Amino acid sequence: MTPSLSILVIDDNRIRASIIEQGLRDAGHDKVIVLDQMDGLVRRITEIEPDVIVIDLENPNRDQLEHIFQVSRAVRRPIAMFVDKADAGSIEAAVDAGVSAYVVDGLKRERVKPIMDMAISRFRAFARLNQELEDARSELAERKVVDRAKGILMKSKGISEDEAYRLLRRTAMNQSRKIGEVAQSLVIASGLLMD
Amino acid sequence: MTPSLSILVIDDNRIRASIIEQGLRDAGHDKVIVLDQMDGLVRRITEIEPDVIVIDLENPNRDQLEHIFQVSRAVRRPIAMFVDKADAGSIEAAVDAGVSAYVVDGLKRERVKPIMDMAISRFRAFARLNQELEDARSELAERKVVDRAKGILMKSKGISEDEAYRLLRRTAMNQSRKIGEVAQSLVIASGLLMD
Repeated sequence: MTPSLSILVIDDNRIRASIIEQGLRDAGHDKVIVLDQMDGLVRRITEIEPDVIVIDLENPNRDQLEHIFQVSRAVRRPIAMFVDKADAGSIEAAVDAGVSAYVVDGLKRERVKPIMDMAISRFRAFARLNQELEDARSELAERKVVDRAKGILMKSKGISEDEAYRLLRRTAMNQSRKIGEVAQSLVIASGLLMD
Repeated sequence: MTPSLSILVIDDNRIRASIIEQGLRDAGHDKVIVLDQMDGLVRRITEIEPDVIVIDLENPNRDQLEHIFQVSRAVRRPIAMFVDKADAGSIEAAVDAGVSAYVVDGLKRERVKPIMDMAISRFRAFARLNQELEDARSELAERKVVDRAKGILMKSKGISEDEAYRLLRRTAMNQSRKIGEVAQSLVIASGLLMD
């Protein structure tokens, strides 16, 4: 949200690109780069590393849209997109591809800044939720693999659950690894060692 | 997305309300109810049970915005909101409150339908992610409580982990309950019975 954001504008229409650029400069954003072609976008975005991307497509066909949605999936950055027409299908596809703001028939100089702010807020909210989901799933996966590893140790060494857990934890500490990692290695290796 | 959606429009400005209504009717939506006041909104929404809500606030002050954001949190439905002005703070607050489309300075008859579609798509995507998070967390919580219950049984009955698990599972089956529920009851009760 701060004026020091670096913004990449992608637009092959010079007039529309300058509307977007002016809208951003009006709002105090001066780190703006404009690209006027769509080739090698993912590579260019990786080089430029913008904080946020504004794409204007005017009247995109299916292939152009699909291309941009693939870019959106690949770059994992806030993306605000302007198009002049859209059906419900393309709107849903845009949401699924993680496009943070998809604006149909609404390109106007004064609107560029609030739409970009919206894209950033929405991107963050979604990223936060995704991170929480990833955390919960990896905690669950770790618990499962530690349980399996404990079971393997209890059986092969004839020790109790407590002892198996302590053995895993001690091994992890000695090797400066996470207990989940040690457990995972044991589960993998036991497939090799036992039959 | 189908024309049989029931839509609640909330707008105290008659002219703007009719722009929204016409935009919806142009797109084939005829189940449209218009409310022209903001009192008792949550109750009214619960009665009307709309599939989607379109709110127009023109120039809302802080209190009006906060009120609508509370409504958004309470009703858990796709909400598209039109305002004429907004700062980055209110945009972020709208996203946090789960407002699915927050449109600044963009009320136009032809835009109502794509914005509503967008609100529905975004609401669904967010709801799906939230559901996945809830599932992962409750699976994790169940695993934790089953582990604790097993530990209690192993100690109090001097049985193995396997036996403890089988005992929990058998009890759950006999009582037509989930194993997590039986485990939770044991953990709670053990706090009463043992010291």
